[in-house]
This record gives sequence, C-alpha cells and structure tokens, in this order.
Amino acid sequence: MSHFKYLPLQGVLERLDAGEIVIGDGGFVFALEKRGYVKAGPWTPEAAAEHPEAVRQLHREFLRAGANVMQTFTFYASDDKLENRGNKLTFTGAQINEAACDLAREVANEGDGLVAGGVSQTPSYLSCKSEIDVKAIFKKQLDVFIKKNVDFLIAEYFEHVEEAEWAVQVLKETGKPVAASLCIGPQGDLHGVSPGECAVRLVKAGAQIVGINCHFDPMTCVKTVKMMKDGVEKAGLKAHYMVQPLAYHTPDCGCQGFIDLPEFPFALEPRILSRWDMHKYAREAYNAGIRFIGGCCGFEPYHIRAVAEELAPERGFLPAASEKHGNWGAGLEMHTKPWVRARARRDYWENLKPASGRPLCPSMSAPDSWGVTKGHTELMQQKEATTQDQLKVLFDNAAPSKHP
Amino acid sequence: MSHFKYLPLQGVLERLDAGEIVIGDGGFVFALEKRGYVKAGPWTPEAAAEHPEAVRQLHREFLRAGANVMQTFTFYASDDKLENRGNKLTFTGAQINEAACDLAREVANEGDGLVAGGVSQTPSYLSCKSEIDVKAIFKKQLDVFIKKNVDFLIAEYFEHVEEAEWAVQVLKETGKPVAASLCIGPQGDLHGVSPGECAVRLVKAGAQIVGINCHFDPMTCVKTVKMMKDGVEKAGLKAHYMVQPLAYHTPDCGCQGFIDLPEFPFALEPRILSRWDMHKYAREAYNAGIRFIGGCCGFEPYHIRAVAEELAPERGFLPAASEKHGNWGAGLEMHTKPWVRARARRDYWENLKPASGRPLCPSMSAPDSWGVTKGHTELMQQKEATTQDQLKVLFDNAAPSKHP
Amino acid sequence: MSHFKYLPLQGVLERLDAGEIVIGDGGFVFALEKRGYVKAGPWTPEAAAEHPEAVRQLHREFLRAGANVMQTFTFYASDDKLENRGNKLTFTGAQINEAACDLAREVANEGDGLVAGGVSQTPSYLSCKSEIDVKAIFKKQLDVFIKKNVDFLIAEYFEHVEEAEWAVQVLKETGKPVAASLCIGPQGDLHGVSPGECAVRLVKAGAQIVGINCHFDPMTCVKTVKMMKDGVEKAGLKAHYMVQPLAYHTPDCGCQGFIDLPEFPFALEPRILSRWDMHKYAREAYNAGIRFIGGCCGFEPYHIRAVAEELAPERGFLPAASEKHGNWGAGLEMHTKPWVRARARRDYWENLKPASGRPLCPSMSAPDSWGVTKGHTELMQQKEATTQDQLKVLFDNAAPSKHP
Amino acid sequence: MSHFKYLPLQGVLERLDAGEIVIGDGGFVFALEKRGYVKAGPWTPEAAAEHPEAVRQLHREFLRAGANVMQTFTFYASDDKLENRGNKLTFTGAQINEAACDLAREVANEGDGLVAGGVSQTPSYLSCKSEIDVKAIFKKQLDVFIKKNVDFLIAEYFEHVEEAEWAVQVLKETGKPVAASLCIGPQGDLHGVSPGECAVRLVKAGAQIVGINCHFDPMTCVKTVKMMKDGVEKAGLKAHYMVQPLAYHTPDCGCQGFIDLPEFPFALEPRILSRWDMHKYAREAYNAGIRFIGGCCGFEPYHIRAVAEELAPERGFLPAASEKHGNWGAGLEMHTKPWVRARARRDYWENLKPASGRPLCPSMSAPDSWGVTKGHTELMQQKEATTQDQLKVLFDNAAPSKHP
Repeated sequence: MSHFKYLPLQGVLERLDAGEIVIGDGGFVFALEKRGYVKAGPWTPEAAAEHPEAVRQLHREFLRAGANVMQTFTFYASDDKLENRGNKLTFTGAQINEAACDLAREVANEGDGLVAGGVSQTPSYLSCKSEIDVKAIFKKQLDVFIKKNVDFLIAEYFEHVEEAEWAVQVLKETGKPVAASLCIGPQGDLHGVSPGECAVRLVKAGAQIVGINCHFDPMTCVKTVKMMKDGVEKAGLKAHYMVQPLAYHTPDCGCQGFIDLPEFPFALEPRILSRWDMHKYAREAYNAGIRFIGGCCGFEPYHIRAVAEELAPERGFLPAASEKHGNWGAGLEMHTKPWVRARARRDYWENLKPASGRPLCPSMSAPDSWGVTKGHTELMQQKEATTQDQLKVLFDNAAPSKHP
Repeated sequence: MSHFKYLPLQGVLERLDAGEIVIGDGGFVFALEKRGYVKAGPWTPEAAAEHPEAVRQLHREFLRAGANVMQTFTFYASDDKLENRGNKLTFTGAQINEAACDLAREVANEGDGLVAGGVSQTPSYLSCKSEIDVKAIFKKQLDVFIKKNVDFLIAEYFEHVEEAEWAVQVLKETGKPVAASLCIGPQGDLHGVSPGECAVRLVKAGAQIVGINCHFDPMTCVKTVKMMKDGVEKAGLKAHYMVQPLAYHTPDCGCQGFIDLPEFPFALEPRILSRWDMHKYAREAYNAGIRFIGGCCGFEPYHIRAVAEELAPERGFLPAASEKHGNWGAGLEMHTKPWVRARARRDYWENLKPASGRPLCPSMSAPDSWGVTKGHTELMQQKEATTQDQLKVLFDNAAPSKHP
Repeated sequence: MSHFKYLPLQGVLERLDAGEIVIGDGGFVFALEKRGYVKAGPWTPEAAAEHPEAVRQLHREFLRAGANVMQTFTFYASDDKLENRGNKLTFTGAQINEAACDLAREVANEGDGLVAGGVSQTPSYLSCKSEIDVKAIFKKQLDVFIKKNVDFLIAEYFEHVEEAEWAVQVLKETGKPVAASLCIGPQGDLHGVSPGECAVRLVKAGAQIVGINCHFDPMTCVKTVKMMKDGVEKAGLKAHYMVQPLAYHTPDCGCQGFIDLPEFPFALEPRILSRWDMHKYAREAYNAGIRFIGGCCGFEPYHIRAVAEELAPERGFLPAASEKHGNWGAGLEMHTKPWVRARARRDYWENLKPASGRPLCPSMSAPDSWGVTKGHTELMQQKEATTQDQLKVLFDNAAPSKHP
Repeated sequence: MSHFKYLPLQGVLERLDAGEIVIGDGGFVFALEKRGYVKAGPWTPEAAAEHPEAVRQLHREFLRAGANVMQTFTFYASDDKLENRGNKLTFTGAQINEAACDLAREVANEGDGLVAGGVSQTPSYLSCKSEIDVKAIFKKQLDVFIKKNVDFLIAEYFEHVEEAEWAVQVLKETGKPVAASLCIGPQGDLHGVSPGECAVRLVKAGAQIVGINCHFDPMTCVKTVKMMKDGVEKAGLKAHYMVQPLAYHTPDCGCQGFIDLPEFPFALEPRILSRWDMHKYAREAYNAGIRFIGGCCGFEPYHIRAVAEELAPERGFLPAASEKHGNWGAGLEMHTKPWVRARARRDYWENLKPASGRPLCPSMSAPDSWGVTKGHTELMQQKEATTQDQLKVLFDNAAPSKHP
C-alpha cells in the first residue's frame, strides 16, 4: 500500500456520493489550549489572528494525519460569543473569521484538503433572543465564508435542534453543501427531542449531511448517529452521516455530555482515548454506514492518524504521518529492549486494559446535573464579566448537599 | 504581577548560583510522536532536519509556557542509535544535530532561552563496547554542539551511572557547564548503584548540575533527586539539582521505570498528569531545593505552564502563555454554563479525584520485569532489522506464564 | 427507643394491610455455602436434614437481626432439582422439606417470626416440560408445607413469569396468603415480558404480594419493583410489594443478572454491600412504597440488622442484635485508638467511598451473555452428571473470541 | 484422597516437630460481629457466656473447614479491656474466660482439635502501666486456662514487642507450649523494632512458635514472618512459625495496618479475599516454611477450607466441609446454566481479576496516620465512656486539612 495520495479535488458531496470516506480533523480549541493559544472558559478562536503560526501548524498536522477536511478555526467566533462575559479581544470577529479561512485554505492546498466554514451555537439563543436576531449572527460569519469561498459549510455543536435548524436555513441560502452536527447523545437534544426526530428536522431544513459532534465518546456518538440514520430512513428521507466525537471516555454522562462531568475541562486526562480505541471507533463508525468520520475535543493528530490507518484498506492508502508509525505497534521492533520489542503485535495492543496509575481515583464520576437549559433564567448570558457575587451564589449552589 | 519578562541573559550556572529558578522544557520525542513527526520504537530525532517547522513550533510553545531552556532535539542522535535495528534515515547524524542546534537557538533568541546540547545513552554501551568507543560517540555529537556554540551541555537519560560518567568526562573537556541526569528511581541504577552514590560519582566526574529525568512520575523523581542531594551533601560535595520527570503517573513501576509498564508506549493516556498534578510537583521540587525544574516524556506545553504558574510568586512573573489561562481555573468564570462557572476555584481542582472513564480497566498494572540489562546477551543491539524469528522468540517469551 | 419487641402474632397480610413493615431474612444458600453446608453449583438445601444445627443458627441470627419472616430452607428442594446433573443426596425431597419446616417454625417461635414456605423455579420448566408436569412438582413440596402448617407461601426466584404464574396457581389452592417474587431486572423476564406486565399477570394469577428477589443489587431491584407497582396500578389492580435483592453491587449486569457476571459465584467478594449501603436500600425501598423488605444471596445477618436499624423509627423498635451495634458507628466511641473513635459519626460512614484494595482489578466486568434461555436446547437439563465431553464443548465455547 | 481424617491427638509442638501442617481457625470478633454477637468498638468476647450456641457453631464450622486449633474466644478478655471506656458487661472476666474454654474444648473433642488459650494486648500497656501491673492482668486470664487445661497458649495481637515479651514470660511459667504472634508488618513494631529483632526477642523470652496475626493481608504477613525467620536464623536460634493474617487486601497500609484504613471497620467489604486468594496465600506460606497457618479478622469458614484444600496434597486429606465444595469450582459442573458450567475449571478462577461493582470508588485509600502509639497521651485509656467533648476534639482533629 502506498503511503498516501492526493485525491482529485472533488467536493464533499461528490466524495460521499461516490462512497468515499471523508476524514475530518480534530477539535482545535482543546488542542490549542494545551499548546497555550486558547483560553478555557470562553474557548474563543482569536488565535487565528493572534498566532497564525500555531493554528497553521495544527492544520498541517491533521492534514498529514489523514484529514480531508480543514475546518476554519471559527468555533464560537460569533460576535455575541466573542464579547460574552467580559472576554476582551484585540481582533474583531470579522478579522478572526477571515484569518481562519486563510489559514485553512493555505494548508488545504498543501494536500487533499477541503475547507469547511463552521458556525456553532450562540449565547443569543441561550438567552432567548429571537429567530431573526440569532440568524443575523450566523449571517455575519457566513459573509466571510462566502467572501473567502470555502468549499462547504458546517453548522456544528448545537444542543438544541431548533437553533441548528435556524443555522441550516441561513447556511442553505448560499447554495454550498451544508452539514449539520448536534452535540447530543442518545437521550436527544436538551429540550428532549429524540436523535431520530432531530435528524429529520435538520434534513428537512436543508442539510445534506447530518450527525453528531463533541460532548460524548466515540461509541456513544456512533450509537446516536445510528439513531439519527434510523429516523431519517423511517421518514423516507436521504442524507449522508457524519460523526466527530470527543477523544474522552464518557460512560458516566447524562444528556448534557462531558460538560457535566466534574473533570471538565481541566482534569479529563485519564479519559483520553488511546490510538487503539480510535481503531475500534473508526471501524464501528464505518460499519454503521457513516462516511464522514472525524474528531472533536481531545483529538490530537495521532488520533486522526489512527482513524486513517484503520480505514486504510477501504481508502487504499495510508496518511503521510504513517511514515512515522508502524502498523499496530510495529515500530517497536526497533526498540532497544527485548520486552518492548515483544509488544510489537496487534493482539497485544488490542486486548490491553490500560491502567490509570491513579489508585486513589475512581473509574467513573457522578455528573453534575443542574437540569437547566435554554429557557431557564440561569442560562441568560451577559456581556459583563461574572461578578464575585454571582460566583458566590454558584459556589454555594455547587455544594454536594444541593445536588446529590 | 506582570505577565512575563525577559531576563538579562545569563548562563545557567549564574542563574542557579543566584538562586533563580530555571524551568526546563518538555520531552520532544513523545510530543512530536503524537504530532506525527517521530517514530515510536527507534525514537530518533530526524524531524529536526526533515520537518523543522514542527520542531520550531514545539520549541516556541515551551518558551511561551515559561521554559528557560531549549534543549537541542538531539535525543538518541548518536550515529550508532540512528542506524540501530534497521532504522533507515535520509539525513546524517551531523545534519540532524546541526539542524537541531539551529532551531533551538532561533527560538531561544525569541525570548529568554538558553540552548542546551544534549547527549544520551548509547546502544554501544548496552552492547558492551569499550569506554574508548562509547566516548568517541559522544565526542562526535559534541563537535556539533561546539561548532554551534550551545550555552551548556546535558548528559541525560542514562540507566547506568558508569556510562553517564563517561559522557560527563567527555562533555567536561569543552569548558562549558555540564548537567547530568539519570533515568533511575529510588532503587538506583540498573547495576544497583544507589542514587546517592550515583550523584557523588557524577559530581566527581565534573557535573555541576545533577538530577533525574524520565522513567518515573514527578513525585518519584523528586524523591530520587532528594536521595542524590543527601548523598552529595554527606560526601561534602556541592552541586545544583535538576529534575525532568515523566508526565505519567507510575506508582506501579520497578527499577526500570515506565519502560516496563504494559502500557508503554502506546496506551499511557490514562496516566497523563493534569495541570493540577503539575502544581504539586513544582512545589514539591522547589521545596526539595531543586532549582532546575522541567519535564520529559508526556509533558505538553500546558504542563510546563503549570510549573511556571505555580512558581510565579518566586519568579516574579507569569509566562506568556498565561495570557490564555486563568489562575486555578479562573477562566471558567466566562463559561456559558453556571455549573461550570461554579468550578472556577482552586479548592475544586486541588481536591478533585479524576475518574478514568474506564470501568473495565484497573488502576495499576503488573510491570514486565525481565531483569536483564547491560551485560546480558539479550541486550546486545544490532544494525540489522529485528527478524521475524527473533520476534517469535520474544513473543513466546512474553507469555504470562513465563513472567508471572 | 426500646431495643426490640415481640409483636402480637398476626399474619403477613394483616401486617401489610395495617401498613406495618415486614422484614424478610437473607438468602440461605450463599450464607451456608460460606459456612460449609451448601454446595455451590447444585445449590440444594439438604443441610436442613443433614446439619440442622447450622440452619437453625442462621435462622436465629436473622430473627435476632430483625427479620419477621423465617423462610423454610427449601430453595431448589423440588425433586427434579435435587437429583439434577448427578447431585446425589442421602435424604429425600420430602425429608428435606419437612426438616426445613420444623427448623423455621422452631426459631420463629423464639420471637416474632412468621414461617413462609417457598418454592422456586424448576429444571423441568427449563427443559420444556408441560404445565401439568411442572405444577405436579410444586404440588409435591406444597403437600409438606400444608402438613407443617406454614403461615404463608412464597413462589420466588422465577426467571420466566409463565412458570411463576403456574406456581402461584398451585399455591393459591391452599387458601394461604401467596407472595410471588421474580428474579428479573428492569429489562423484564427472560422471554422479554416487562416488569409491569409480569406483575399484572402474577396478581391476576392470585398473588397478594408481588416483587423481586435475587439477581440484581438493591437499587436495581427497588427500581424494578417500582415498575411492577406502576403496572399494577395502571391496570387498576391492588397488591402489596416485596423486595429481596442481592447483597452485591451489580451495575454491570444484563437481563440475566449476576449469574452472567464473570465473578459468579466464587469471586463476588469485592461487590458485597456494606451496612451503610443497606441503610440507603432500606430507605429507598420504603420510600417506593414497598413494605416487605428483605434480602437474598449475599445477605448476612448484619445486613438485615442494618435494614431494621434504618427503619427503626417507622417500626418503633430496634432489633435484638442492635444490643451489639452502635447506631451509625457509635460503638467506635469505645475504641482504644483516637483516630478510630473519630469515625464514630454518621456523616463519616455515609460519605465514605470504600476502596477495593485491589489495584490490579477493574471496577466493572463485561458479563457473559450467551443469550439462551428456556426453549433453547442448551438449557435442557439432565439427571446424569455433566460429562467431560460436555464440559469441553462449554470450555471451548467460553473462549473470549466467541463471546466478545 | 479421603475426605478427612482424625489425626492421633498429639500436641502442637509434636505436630510441628514432625513437619505436619497445623491449620488455625479464623478470627472470631469480626465473624461474630456480622452474626450479631460482638460489638465493634470494644470488640470484647462476652458472647462466649451470653450466646454460647453462636460461638459453638462458629468453632464447629472452622473445625469442619479443616482447622486443627480451636482458639478460646478470649480475645480482649482481660479485665482492664472488658471495662474500658464504659463497656458494661453482665458477665465477669472469669466467667467469660471459663465459658470460652468450655466451648473450645467441647468442639475440639468433636474432631481433631487442639485448644489454645489466648491473651492479647492490654489497655494497661497502652496507658503506660508498669510491667508488674500488665503481667498481673495476663496472669489472671492464665489462671482460667490452667484450670481448664488448654493444650497450649498463644500471646497474640501485640503491637509492641515489649508487651508481647512480658506476656510470653508469664505464659511460659505454666510449662505449656507458647506461641507468640505480633500484629505488625514489614516496618516492624510501633516503636520501630524490626520484625527480625522482634522474633529474636520473643524466642529468647521463651516462645516456641513465633509469627504474625491480624492487621495486614496474607501476602504482607507472610513476608513479615519471613523477615522474622531470617532474624531468628541469623541469631542462631530455632523456632516454629505461624501466620494468621486478615482476610482483607491491604496494599495501602502503613505500619499500623488496617486500623488506619478509612474503611476500618465498617466498610471493608470490597477488600475481602476470595477463596482463590486463599489458595495463593496457603501455598506462599507453606513455601516460606511456615507450618502453623490460619486466619484472623475477616476469615470465614470457607476461607479456612480453601487453605485446607490447597494444602490437602501435603496433609493427605480434605476437610469435612469439602463434601460441600468441588475442587477449584468443580461443583459448577452441576449448574443449570451452560455458561456457568463453563467456569468449572481452575484456570478460570486462578486468573480472574474480580471487579468491585463500585465504579465511583477508588482501588486504594490514603490511610490515617496520626503517628501516635504507646507513650503518647492521646493513647491513654479510661474506664469512663468517651464524652461528647472528647469526641468533638477528635472529630475536629480528623478534618482532612489536619492530616493531609
């Protein structure tokens, strides 16, 4: 098998229609937070303008790992989010969105990459702003994507299908292919709409690709996409499917996903998936009929490479970064220690149950579950920084006795 | 407290003599393996020549995270290691070492960085080559370091103090400051020499800074450096101390460290330290009298930033990357969800026992312990690739019944 | 509060109708297996005849712990089970059943005990014998219960509601109160009948008390009884409810319960509930409207005592065995060590997360799931001992690759 | 192999001198606490007089499980302990000690049992009473043992070798064989005397059998006895060795053993050893040259049976209770479910890593370590009940911040 190849540059729908696998990239905010360029809390993507070299390098690593899609680093780059709760930035929303488009295109052109412009859920929706207001926010980001001529559009990371429908309706007007991806699990969206029903509504709104990203681990996300697929098929509709899960194990989540875990976002390390977990994920997703397979928060380039290596027989080639990776541990044949060379085999890694090295810690957590979402006053957003008084109320409210 | 500052550019010994904290960088081979530029198994640093943009970016991230030392990416860049067991490279050893020096210097000049040229243990020593042969190998790398005028030298990652002494003796001839760092734990080197005795021998060989790197978790490494310090002080000698541990929890290791863990190197994820673990490490190291405090395998830039943030009161400034990090979770004050804002406090993160999300996995492993090291025929290295027959012997030998 | 009292001896229905709590005893086969009188595998109760002193003592301990019900030790004492698969016994079925009735009555008379005669599921049903054949088997045990004049009857430990209905119909003919208890979980019986539907069918068959015993942990059993109660109430019927769960934590079970766990039956120790877990169970059961609250496999006398202590405010008295037990750890006030005296308080024990002391073990298991039950040829029983050839087929079939 | 045999009734020393294995019984206070006859906290053995039927039955179960030794249930039956901290009893110390001797002899005579009279550490020693006072306390219990003519004597459960020496000196005067057993681990007694040194002092004081009981798990106790044996042999002395460990896994203990674990004594369930753990223990103890092999707290009759089954090849017979136990799970050949019959084999149980069923709990705990022992005022005992004020001081002192 040759190590990698440049595909003839077709659009995302042409590829999916032809039955090809499209590999997504990984989540940028978590990866760049660890590299020092994104602030956890606001999670805004100003690094696209502030530190382009860092964003460019991460794009490049995902491309090299086998990704076909370069998502513009525009997550949470809506104006209302960029200035939420006292987040002060040097660059304007338009500058950030433009810089992100340029970086994605630059690296996409180094290989076989498509550029996808992305919008995500807004504080405005959480704060019960009107459909018109919320759509205007999406429209503003979209103007940049059109100007920069991205290849397709993704409405991703929506907890409420209603807001995602609004986004799809706006994106749809451009004539570009539209993908829509919710951050929900098998229990459905935060207003209780089932995954199947959500998918039907998104397809009807105009999305050609529907699926799940973020909030849950790979197997849970694949399971949820299956429920979406069932819903779409039962409704007599057609769509392509995508999945871009967390790289964290989340067996203990409720409907809100990893946001509710006590470890979010600063102590998720013990939950990080290994590359072998990713092999299982890629195979499971493929077997479920999903063809747009990528990652979200927690994914590092080697995770995407593992997806590409698992699916190399179907794709017919290995990604560039496999030049530095032996299949199923084969690189260990060159290790100096004989007992490490003895691990250079698939069955060893496939069956290993890795230890946490943390004997004082549990294997699962009890998630927070405040049970509030869009429509509750506690979810109203504000432009001003959270005050000490507001924090005190929250700290008191978080006492174990309050949320047993 | 100002966010960061450029110190007047003094040498490493001047800084340590003045009682300053010197923060090291993290390990490059593991970080770049995840980014797709280093092959696990041989672990050689040809990326310095092949993909300079990736190496440069990682240097920059560590600098930005607060590191004062840019170690040249020359780990295992001795000629005998570069061509061990069928490792075929496009670049020569000299080219790799030179490229690595240039990259380290380029980034060091962007801030407050010192360039340290590093040598590490050799297959030749494991294969029982003579002192003259082994020293010749170090000398070859050293010629590049002198030509490129690095600021100081580190002999690191030695399992046998004897080989480290040889390295120190070679490095010492240059007149540059010399640090020596073993990859051993409290049980001592692989020939059974205690940490205290190892340290005394290294100081007598000429090292001005002695300590530990790699193979064990931070608390174990700090404990071992304390034993070294005790040994040096009891011998009436003087030295500075350094520690550059793993970013993996290793409570279950024997004398060989994490190499023996079944999870090495492809399933260590659940063991990765959180940033809060790093705060404890930095404080413990400082309290133990160690002033050169850095990281090794598993460290990502945010881990070094945590070290720098913990020691910011002593240093008087925060690192550049803290612009994107609230102290002890303060960035979460800007999160959209109230229960996540409720986590924006030190006591929350300091006391959390993070779950692994892996209920089918244990918390500790039984390490391999083949009990062989330099002097055993099984440790003889070879230039040729490991054959299938050689592998078969190893796979059979690895059966559980053989090593209970 | 007085330490214990003898209630005026009323029947089980009179007590339940009056809103009283009836506390059951614990499971005898597991408790006596650990004491050396029951063989795991056949799990037959010949000890009633062979070693009456051991059975009498266990009855006495449960009475002393607060149990109001002495179940005759006649579990699996149907003739077809007593001689299944080569189980050779010295005593006849009639002798065992008679001896068991005498022992239960003797101890019941020492206090406030009711004697309940019990029948349980049969190999004949599993082997697809006819309704007439299966009912004849129940009838034979019943003849002894009538002769010995037990106070009421329990049909317990049924995996298929159909067989339980048959048992209830037979028991009902005696005119004595009849309780019926399935060993199923929230997923329903092994033919897929939901808990609510099962309960309705049992009530319609004539059971005055319905509920769950064995196979799942207390919280799961209480949840399942709630589903039964919902079903009965929605059908406009009336019943009393009982629950007699395992004393083992079983978060990882499928529909077959703890039988499928790899640890069944010889390595369940780490799953044993503490007395504090029992407090939570008793309260949860009471709050769910269940008034016949007891235990099954794994329960030791101190577990029943914990149930009785939790419900002492409602019952108005403590059990006899509380003479040797301080409330919520109060006995530790008399410990010689100050740090143990510091544990003599409710919040300490209520919030403790007890460690397993087994760092090489996981917290959950993957259950076997062969997916066979009554109606599959693999479930056909035989009088002859299992042969080596039959075992070989099973051992091969149990290989991990077969049942992933 | 015949199922069991009555040995010609020889004394304990004759048996050990002849190389025979002597199997001890299990700990009575924990077993009877669970049965409702002993109060945790004071842990005194008044049940011998109050509830002889319960004590007799437990003796009988251990005899039936293979024990050769019936220890009189006189643990903590010294007068100063019986009335410590407000413990009010109906029976006098002499009555309790006499009743215990009668019960042990009665059951011993039912089989192959030796009666061992036991004394244990005293509150008087902890409270710094004089050697004369402490010896007088032992003497008082001893008078009963002589009157009742026990077969040999055991001074057990001593944390300080000095007090154990005093006990041995008193016991030795009777002319009966004397065994001495400390409750210490590899770190030595609570004054820091090493296990080897302790053993030498006990042998010199007159003990013919020395060893360890309680406080640590089997493997730790065996390791400690090995250290004692090394000490005795290096000193040119001779002794027999005994071990009677906990049935709880204690990998996380310090020098004080399980008393310091947060789970002591009411949440130790997840730590209970399985019968298969006991097989490993028995073999390890035998291989270490220990010939008096029994159990202490946590041992139930089936644990002793597992010891007897493991050592059946050496002893030449199985215990009586093995009539109800298939070797290595063989009884499961008679189970009704095929996947359970598939577990009827040694390699299945020998390799199983049993899950705790507690995913919210850790695998190890951080032990309390107040670092006080005999000689500290906090260890002074009192006759009066602990007051609420005294408790308050302890509860405050136990706050996590005080003992990190």
